[in-house]
Amino acid sequence: MSIISVNDNGFLDKIKNKKVQFSCVISSIETTKYIPISGVNKKVIEYTPAADMELVVLGKSLSISTPPIDATGCPSPATITRANVDLKDIPVLTVDAGSAVKPKIPYISVDEKPTGDIYKGKAMDNSKELFKMGEIIGKNLTCDVLIIGESVPGGTTTALGVLLGLGYDAKDKISSGSVENPKELKLNVVENGLKYAKSKDVFDVLNAVGDKMMPVVAGMAFSSAKQGRPVILAGGTQMASVLSVISEIDKNYKKENILKSGLVSIGTTEFVLNDKNADLKGIVEQIDENVPIFASKFDYDKSELDGLKSYCKGSVKEGVGAGGISVYSYANGLNLNKVRKYVEKNYYKWFSVDEWIILH
Amino acid sequence: MSIISVNDNGFLDKIKNKKVQFSCVISSIETTKYIPISGVNKKVIEYTPAADMELVVLGKSLSISTPPIDATGCPSPATITRANVDLKDIPVLTVDAGSAVKPKIPYISVDEKPTGDIYKGKAMDNSKELFKMGEIIGKNLTCDVLIIGESVPGGTTTALGVLLGLGYDAKDKISSGSVENPKELKLNVVENGLKYAKSKDVFDVLNAVGDKMMPVVAGMAFSSAKQGRPVILAGGTQMASVLSVISEIDKNYKKENILKSGLVSIGTTEFVLNDKNADLKGIVEQIDENVPIFASKFDYDKSELDGLKSYCKGSVKEGVGAGGISVYSYANGLNLNKVRKYVEKNYYKWFSVDEWIILH
Repeated sequence: MSIISVNDNGFLDKIKNKKVQFSCVISSIETTKYIPISGVNKKVIEYTPAADMELVVLGKSLSISTPPIDATGCPSPATITRANVDLKDIPVLTVDAGSAVKPKIPYISVDEKPTGDIYKGKAMDNSKELFKMGEIIGKNLTCDVLIIGESVPGGTTTALGVLLGLGYDAKDKISSGSVENPKELKLNVVENGLKYAKSKDVFDVLNAVGDKMMPVVAGMAFSSAKQGRPVILAGGTQMASVLSVISEIDKNYKKENILKSGLVSIGTTEFVLNDKNADLKGIVEQIDENVPIFASKFDYDKSELDGLKSYCKGSVKEGVGAGGISVYSYANGLNLNKVRKYVEKNYYKWFSVDEWIILH
Repeated sequence: MSIISVNDNGFLDKIKNKKVQFSCVISSIETTKYIPISGVNKKVIEYTPAADMELVVLGKSLSISTPPIDATGCPSPATITRANVDLKDIPVLTVDAGSAVKPKIPYISVDEKPTGDIYKGKAMDNSKELFKMGEIIGKNLTCDVLIIGESVPGGTTTALGVLLGLGYDAKDKISSGSVENPKELKLNVVENGLKYAKSKDVFDVLNAVGDKMMPVVAGMAFSSAKQGRPVILAGGTQMASVLSVISEIDKNYKKENILKSGLVSIGTTEFVLNDKNADLKGIVEQIDENVPIFASKFDYDKSELDGLKSYCKGSVKEGVGAGGISVYSYANGLNLNKVRKYVEKNYYKWFSVDEWIILH
């Protein structure tokens, strides 16, 4: 089987042969400009969300000369998402919650300005409004199933901050897009930022150390579940953090019991689920043990490309909804080796050697 | 029957019991700042598209204190659109093609800057790119039926300009949102603007005297029809102008014969179809006599509100997709007097007397 299931509640049956919308909420974080919490190359970090979404929608990046790629040649997970979108003809919606560089494709604008400096506890001042914007987006979609991914460089640090701020045991459980997870650094940043949180209320915690993607995704999930639409939160520990936001908003504000509805799941990659430096399952079960986690497998060990093999050694792991969209596609008949072959076929087109040298 | 059909080709059967998306493309036009081509109150003209869409999506305007209303108390057609959206639970998508004031709701951004000065032939320089943006939007929707409306103050003038620029007999056929249609003025503006068009190519004509809504709507229609999705161009003579753009792009670029597919229709109000100072049918039949026109009726003569009765005397007539969305709703069981009653019920809430006095 190409999907690993944890706490399965029959969710996969609800997404078979249904009209799906893949959406991806993007944001930049000011802190990444001067503290190396993200593994993304500093020269391209501001371009990453835009370039990711251009690749997913158009099959090529426009804002930079190649799609994002790390120093080991490991390509952005947007390559996996693009494979799914193209092979299964999945419609894509980009939601801008403050990407520093705007994608050169149509996108839903909810906040122009990037997430602020989480080290200073100044992530945003409008998390409640962003939640409402997310609710409006979800209410006005026409799909039967909604996948929500993210592209937020530095986003595992905000995930850590929000989980800690809401009282979860998350210190050694948060994943990273790098082989070497700079855990101490991330912890220092969010512990400092949390000092400035006005209260332990979820919106105050978000305002201090969250990122703008989080309340938007939470809002989209609420209004979708309210309409009976199954939602895949497509991501790793970042989406676990969004799950904690959803749970907290439900407890204190909405009182809709959406996590009990069976309509909200987490969809990620095997690389995150099996990450020995993190514990996605351990976080999710603290929040609500009824929420299922599905992880898509990849046969990247069979690839002749070192860049793809790097995924198996802990590079990148997840992002741009790659794991969750693959869960949907696999549940709807796509074979995992088709994803690999699609990425392999396009790898040299996307990352011509000349361009790659310029970037690194 | 509450729908008047012209050149009926069975289109209405294709939109029954189907998942619909209402979309509305908005733009401002620089020329309206200094030439009174639009009947909209000058103080609120820049706020009109934003306030219209806020009303449609939220049930109230946020950017100004009441929804747009003319000097006779005749409310924006957004009130009709809102009635349909609320009564039939229709999802809404706002597309910003350069509204001067941005709506305080999520919107798809395709161009931040308003349409330029059409008197100087400088409407835009990117109509081809905007067409491609529209194509991407249409390709990535999940609905079965697409309604596309517009809110573009001054848009009947750009409609005239484009039709004349493409060689159609349109001089005395273009409608207006005012009782007194300033035909001479509009003609002077576009005849001057057309002197600057680089060629008679559709994109050059758009760049000179079009508005940014037009290529975006054309693109959305192309990619939708390509997927077999029925499209209602929801508007009056402005949408006839978009139809001429579609026809021209098809002839010279796309060669997809989309107007022969039977999937593209015009949906408007009886107030436009029966406008004695205009000739929607005469324009559409010059472009392609196979394109059906549907006009929704309203029993506004029965209203006790002068503001609603004004529609029957030629005020406002159409806009924000009011006619087309009503065609969809009527075809799906909504009774026309429910629309009137909804607007009547909310009229005093929307337009409290105090606010109304401030604005006029």
